[in-house]
Amino acid sequence: MAVYTQVSDEELIAFLENYELGPLLSCKGIAEGVENSNYYLHAGAGSFILTLYEKRVAESDLPFFLGLMEHLSARGVTCPLPVRNRAGAALGRLAGRPAAIITFLDGYSVAHPEPAHCAALGEALAHFHRAGADFPLRRQNTLSVAGWRPLFAPFAARADEVAEGLGDIVAAELAYLDANWPGDLPSGVIHADLFPDNVFFLGDKISGLIDFYFACTDALAYDLAICLNAWCFTAQGDFEPDKCAALLGGYSAVRALAPAEIDAFPVLARGAALRFLLTRFVDWLNVPPGALVRPKDPKEYLARLKRHRQLATPSGYGLGSGFGE
Amino acid sequence: MAVYTQVSDEELIAFLENYELGPLLSCKGIAEGVENSNYYLHAGAGSFILTLYEKRVAESDLPFFLGLMEHLSARGVTCPLPVRNRAGAALGRLAGRPAAIITFLDGYSVAHPEPAHCAALGEALAHFHRAGADFPLRRQNTLSVAGWRPLFAPFAARADEVAEGLGDIVAAELAYLDANWPGDLPSGVIHADLFPDNVFFLGDKISGLIDFYFACTDALAYDLAICLNAWCFTAQGDFEPDKCAALLGGYSAVRALAPAEIDAFPVLARGAALRFLLTRFVDWLNVPPGALVRPKDPKEYLARLKRHRQLATPSGYGLGSGFGE
Repeated sequence: MAVYTQVSDEELIAFLENYELGPLLSCKGIAEGVENSNYYLHAGAGSFILTLYEKRVAESDLPFFLGLMEHLSARGVTCPLPVRNRAGAALGRLAGRPAAIITFLDGYSVAHPEPAHCAALGEALAHFHRAGADFPLRRQNTLSVAGWRPLFAPFAARADEVAEGLGDIVAAELAYLDANWPGDLPSGVIHADLFPDNVFFLGDKISGLIDFYFACTDALAYDLAICLNAWCFTAQGDFEPDKCAALLGGYSAVRALAPAEIDAFPVLARGAALRFLLTRFVDWLNVPPGALVRPKDPKEYLARLKRHRQLATPSGYGLGSGFGE
Repeated sequence: MAVYTQVSDEELIAFLENYELGPLLSCKGIAEGVENSNYYLHAGAGSFILTLYEKRVAESDLPFFLGLMEHLSARGVTCPLPVRNRAGAALGRLAGRPAAIITFLDGYSVAHPEPAHCAALGEALAHFHRAGADFPLRRQNTLSVAGWRPLFAPFAARADEVAEGLGDIVAAELAYLDANWPGDLPSGVIHADLFPDNVFFLGDKISGLIDFYFACTDALAYDLAICLNAWCFTAQGDFEPDKCAALLGGYSAVRALAPAEIDAFPVLARGAALRFLLTRFVDWLNVPPGALVRPKDPKEYLARLKRHRQLATPSGYGLGSGFGE
């Protein structure tokens, strides 16, 4: 749920006068995204999403995010397209916040992905990576290996409030990943948060990828490892090999994995699990009183991390030469 | 904000198969209404609102509410129309809850109503009352004078937590209203919650009335007194005579007030202020931990109540023979 900033009709009507979208017909706050305020917007020209960017998104990053959507959309990736105003700008200001209007995409999130959904996701992710190859802007991934220690340190003493032994497990994992994180994999723009909430389907076909507000420049295979964590485990943390095979198969059918990416995959999978374990852990300890957002359980990602330690090798994920170049 | 019950894509697709609305295209939780879970629903046949009825709404009342919308809509009142399923039923069941699909109305709520909006509201309310005159179902108003003491009593000892002296003020007001509440005014179906959130405008024209889940059978002029409280005061509790004149003028142009309604109006206005003071007070003391809804401030209605005591007579509201039959 996320409507942090209320917009009055007067403000919205004045804002829409900057666009060639016709009159305001309807605007309703929607429960989509957790970082920003989002509205379903119906105007004379059709249906749109209005996003007000809240404090967790750096304003200086917005040209990267909006430019990426335009870049991908122009290359056939079905994602929201920012609508430019009469002055040619994709970014405006509304109710004291940076704001953008983006196209509305039909489709719905799948609560219980099947292997067919995972295969479609893998293909879409590979198309995304290929389409992003010539995107000129760069944005550092602040939530990669170098960012995890500073994220964890202020709350390390409280780790065992969440799960017994969590502090020791995270400390050991940080040491392992620092020592083993791959440094020279094929990189480019990644989505970095392609959870089921952010992938729209119509039937078995993907109709859109949304929520690009964690996108950054990083190892492409790390994006795949994030999807593996988000799509190929049960809620109880059980690994689902058939979904993993579908995801990796779908991806590699569009973009073959380099041998170094296959070798590094188990480490990337552990890193991805730790990244979401850590951000969920910090959010868990920092729910403000009166919060409108319920935090997600970090223990789900602790279970995944433990499972990755067991899977251990590329073959644990079913990765072999068939996925490579 | 209100999305209490999550609906999975599988459940929704199965539910839609009961309707002739085509395939599911999109469904997003929206921040509308506080009693129920509401979704913007895009299906093959167009845009709709999907409502899941939560525990605060009695299931036995749903035929009254849904029947009322059908009755009013058939008589030209622009309100949502329940969509009947293939079996001819307006009410179904989804995610363990009673659920209905209603038509989507364009329009937006006005944050700062002007007199022109109040005049349009008055006309619309009078049309509503006239259209409801032959509605055959009845529903008792559990939030009228007989309901206020039982509502207040369990929390009376905590009244001064909210405002100093509140307990004494409410006790005195309950005594006054018990003694002076009019018993024999023209009655019929009333909306009973026609706040600005529940009235959609396109420009100065009303495009729809929504949220009929407090509708009941009661004095028609009490509905007008509720609107007076909701539309004709500043947030600080200052009475705005020009908006009051516009509201009462708009109403009486469509449905003339009986002399008894004019005489009783000051008492009805006090009662309406007390009703929202009491429900807000109880909600204020009963915010559950982790609530997704911020309670509204009861003190806004304490200020209104005090002002009504000063206005005191029909002429205090500008009511004279020009508004009557």
